[in-house]
Amino acid sequence: MFIQLDFESKKPIYTQLKHEIIAGIAKQKLEAGEGLPSVRSLAADLGINLHTVNKAYQQLKQEGFILIHRQKGVVINPDGVTPADEDYHAELKDLLRPSIAESVCRGMSEEEYLSMCRELFKEFSEGEEK
Amino acid sequence: MFIQLDFESKKPIYTQLKHEIIAGIAKQKLEAGEGLPSVRSLAADLGINLHTVNKAYQQLKQEGFILIHRQKGVVINPDGVTPADEDYHAELKDLLRPSIAESVCRGMSEEEYLSMCRELFKEFSEGEEK
Repeated sequence: MFIQLDFESKKPIYTQLKHEIIAGIAKQKLEAGEGLPSVRSLAADLGINLHTVNKAYQQLKQEGFILIHRQKGVVINPDGVTPADEDYHAELKDLLRPSIAESVCRGMSEEEYLSMCRELFKEFSEGEEK
Repeated sequence: MFIQLDFESKKPIYTQLKHEIIAGIAKQKLEAGEGLPSVRSLAADLGINLHTVNKAYQQLKQEGFILIHRQKGVVINPDGVTPADEDYHAELKDLLRPSIAESVCRGMSEEEYLSMCRELFKEFSEGEEK
């Protein structure tokens, strides 16, 4: 799999793993209904603890990105994830507000901030072209 | 003070307090060199634990937003906070990338995301007009 973890990062491994899978869905490397490795096999592949993979999978399940079947195993949610609604918008604002406040304090202009966002959007739209 | 805490939120109180102070600096409600209440007095004012205020203040100090003097007490960093450098840009990208990936998965367009950012920037630029 394409998953890359940074063992030097301050970001917990389960969070990194979760973000890598969400990024994989965004980049369409992982498609709706596609199977993911079992907890055991992914943990072995990545050289990380079973509990770490389990924690990432549980959160992804809770947030609607994956389903965990007793028989079929782990699959990317075939119905797709819930589209952005008011709750998601509110959550996103809560995440962005402090980072925008801090950027203003550090003298970063709105335009610099927006172009960083645009650049990041490109990372996820390139997948579509392939 | 203008600080508003949401005791129902999942976000820890010390984080909320830290973000409120950073937002206060961004909105120029708090100016460079301005004094902040002591840990004890702010904790009493807000009805929260001393350790909670202390944790917020320690993080703000570490990130360069405030200074903590034995005698003068707590002040907003008179030299201003370090301007956004490469490290800050890298940190900001790490924060934004997962939220952009998730927004793409949830079918939010780049334009919707950017206009949310623009709206939030407005919250912080209105202070300047006053």
